Amino acid sequence: MTEKKNIAIMGAGLVGSLLSLYLAKRGHKVDLYERRPDLRKNVIDGGRSINLALSDRGWRALKGIGIEEEVRKVSIPMYGRMMHDEQGKLTYQPYGKEGQAIYSVSRGGLNMALMNLSEPNNDITYHFSRQATDVNLRTNEVQLRNTETGSTETIQPDLLFGADGAFSVVRGAMQRTERFDYQQSYLEYGYKELTIPAAAGGGWAIEKNALHIWPRGNYMMIALPNLDGSFTCTLFFPYEGERSFAAIQNEQDLLGFFREVFPDALPLMPELVQDYFEHPVGSLVTVKCFPWSYEDKSLLIGDASHAVVPFYGQGMNAGFEDITVLDQMLDSFDGENWGQLFEAFERRRKPNADAIADLAVLNFIEMRDKVADPRFLLRKKIEGKISEQYPDKWIPLYSMVTFTDLPYSYALETGRQQDKIMKKVMKHIKSIEDYDKPEVQKLLEKQLVTKEKLKKYDKSAGLE
Amino acid sequence: MTEKKNIAIMGAGLVGSLLSLYLAKRGHKVDLYERRPDLRKNVIDGGRSINLALSDRGWRALKGIGIEEEVRKVSIPMYGRMMHDEQGKLTYQPYGKEGQAIYSVSRGGLNMALMNLSEPNNDITYHFSRQATDVNLRTNEVQLRNTETGSTETIQPDLLFGADGAFSVVRGAMQRTERFDYQQSYLEYGYKELTIPAAAGGGWAIEKNALHIWPRGNYMMIALPNLDGSFTCTLFFPYEGERSFAAIQNEQDLLGFFREVFPDALPLMPELVQDYFEHPVGSLVTVKCFPWSYEDKSLLIGDASHAVVPFYGQGMNAGFEDITVLDQMLDSFDGENWGQLFEAFERRRKPNADAIADLAVLNFIEMRDKVADPRFLLRKKIEGKISEQYPDKWIPLYSMVTFTDLPYSYALETGRQQDKIMKKVMKHIKSIEDYDKPEVQKLLEKQLVTKEKLKKYDKSAGLE
Repeated sequence: MTEKKNIAIMGAGLVGSLLSLYLAKRGHKVDLYERRPDLRKNVIDGGRSINLALSDRGWRALKGIGIEEEVRKVSIPMYGRMMHDEQGKLTYQPYGKEGQAIYSVSRGGLNMALMNLSEPNNDITYHFSRQATDVNLRTNEVQLRNTETGSTETIQPDLLFGADGAFSVVRGAMQRTERFDYQQSYLEYGYKELTIPAAAGGGWAIEKNALHIWPRGNYMMIALPNLDGSFTCTLFFPYEGERSFAAIQNEQDLLGFFREVFPDALPLMPELVQDYFEHPVGSLVTVKCFPWSYEDKSLLIGDASHAVVPFYGQGMNAGFEDITVLDQMLDSFDGENWGQLFEAFERRRKPNADAIADLAVLNFIEMRDKVADPRFLLRKKIEGKISEQYPDKWIPLYSMVTFTDLPYSYALETGRQQDKIMKKVMKHIKSIEDYDKPEVQKLLEKQLVTKEKLKKYDKSAGLE
Repeated sequence: MTEKKNIAIMGAGLVGSLLSLYLAKRGHKVDLYERRPDLRKNVIDGGRSINLALSDRGWRALKGIGIEEEVRKVSIPMYGRMMHDEQGKLTYQPYGKEGQAIYSVSRGGLNMALMNLSEPNNDITYHFSRQATDVNLRTNEVQLRNTETGSTETIQPDLLFGADGAFSVVRGAMQRTERFDYQQSYLEYGYKELTIPAAAGGGWAIEKNALHIWPRGNYMMIALPNLDGSFTCTLFFPYEGERSFAAIQNEQDLLGFFREVFPDALPLMPELVQDYFEHPVGSLVTVKCFPWSYEDKSLLIGDASHAVVPFYGQGMNAGFEDITVLDQMLDSFDGENWGQLFEAFERRRKPNADAIADLAVLNFIEMRDKVADPRFLLRKKIEGKISEQYPDKWIPLYSMVTFTDLPYSYALETGRQQDKIMKKVMKHIKSIEDYDKPEVQKLLEKQLVTKEKLKKYDKSAGLE
């Protein structure tokens, strides 16, 4: 048992709240400081939920603290992608094997559930409406301003965790130290949240158990189901250009555009005009940095150290996996040298954080563009067949990321190798039946068995 | 003639000072604000000069304002690299064709010369010891603190140029705007300035007209000549590891290390111990960002927008080229829309700034490591022969960067193509005589004439 520490977590979002449970379980005293007011007492975002897709890495972290089943009840499984073309025609593509799904949950709902679970713990205290105005990394002193009363205070925890998101104040302090690598990059795309309300008689207006995509080449709309029968839609759209946020100036532009490119969605969106012109355009940033820690005093976790764009649905899952990995490392931690622990943690997670950041950008291209291409869908089916025939040698990239805990960096690298093989295979494929052609079978035999290019991931290699 | 503008340049370093001359020539009123005191009245760096290598892009910018000859007089041409091996054996490699050289100049000396040239101009005013504490991009108000008197003032120029270097305050303000791409990355190496003083009887202790390199695999020392007979040496060295700054703790460590790896330099460095333990370790940062401007109000230039590591000797040259390009664009500028001008400038320069940043990192590997390899030196000689035989089709990468004004991005891309060809060619080469072998000649004929892979750069393509 390690010494009981006074720990401050900046940010009481999903990662901060879950982390508090894990740290308190190990006997530490945890205080969480959150910039915003208590979202349980304040309706945020006009009551509109932002959805997240929980997948295996996220579930694993929830399970580790015993709250998997509770969250499962308020989530909706999505077993595949439902593509809507410009004529409203539907094409369905399962995400994985039968029964495998990603789960739509409400960000606010999940956050509240985590707060409600952790707050009764005597060692966990939430402090809301506290804006960190300055962080002194050397002394671990944090200046806080109470945004309700205007009063200020200074805290000085033993350990400081920066779970304060993509625009982290703790990371801001690290950025001012010597030799801190930092990168923020924005896509030329923004996003806007829209709504498909529940059907007139209740229930879901379109297929409930799917993630809906309207892929349109260089832009797209998606929709995720909510428990109340509504869907939260997100339009990912260029800032500038012929088809862009800048080009839609009024109601007429908007409706003309939707009528042309999202004809089946438009009748389902009675609040479209209001939503569109009232909701802000969100930006899409990737943040990479290194190191993630300062001496034995502070550590960044979640988006604060690795904000990713949302197209692989892995932002929260990656942050939750940070906690799983940290918790594993705490199992064999002697409680002495926190600086060493932090360094080991950041070295282990950094390549995986970089990999999921890159995968998320690549998946944007796949979602907005390729999923509308029949050749691409055929390729996905062929990949499914390979995976059935060689289950030990071929897990599709999407499945590695979503349905396993293989390191993201391994998934990215393996995905690249798979891509090379698929290019060769697809030269011989005109339809799904061609899979059984001798030259295809021979090629796969050579690539997967003889060359053994795709070695099964070796857990003993000690990645994670 | 455009309207006379009140222009503020933050930073009176090399780029800021030269820019003031170009802007005043066009009839604008220019104020320069420099954080440090006037270096003409204050001995900085203990009188020790930091050297720079001026090459063609830099000369072109100096020539454009009519001061090329004046600077030429205080510079020392370096016609090639002089490599020193661990036994003190020398190998020489010319940089370009006969007569082509890069020029060693003192940073302080050049900066003072530029100040002395610009200050008599009634439209140019220098303000020293002025630290920018806040920049409001929307209003173009800059808060300045006089570091001598402690007093503060606010300026509000029509146009604001950020020539304030790698840690630019103007860029800092841009970083806080929406959708600003930013990246800073550090090498795992630092540097330390050391000295070889003039020889006892006066004059240079080692070859004057060369850039000296002691390449040692994962670290190196270089030396550039000064007018007074001394050389400024720079040790580029890992921060951590067996051979590193961290490993050298005392005089004994230092002398033992130099005796072993720089045996011919050690006797020439009587001040080594003092220099080493008194001088700080500098860090090596690359900064990339975008955009470089804010509306029609401010523009970053030089290191502020694209700080590079020093290994191609192009940091100052790239900054000076910014000014040449901006000046060319001002030739056809109607004086109306500065925002449009800034956007056109940043779009044009950004790919070249990115390219020289990447080239500089690549050249570090070449300098510290490959120049000690006989195969690499043979390859350089073969490249020289190709360039002689096909002068229209093959300019070596180093020459493109150093002795032409071809865009850096074109040089980088062409260099990659050359690299592929050289890999094929070198398979047939054991000695310089093999160049004339029929298979080598046939290969080159095919690659350079038949395939015409390396098209001559087309100025009409409108890059720059």
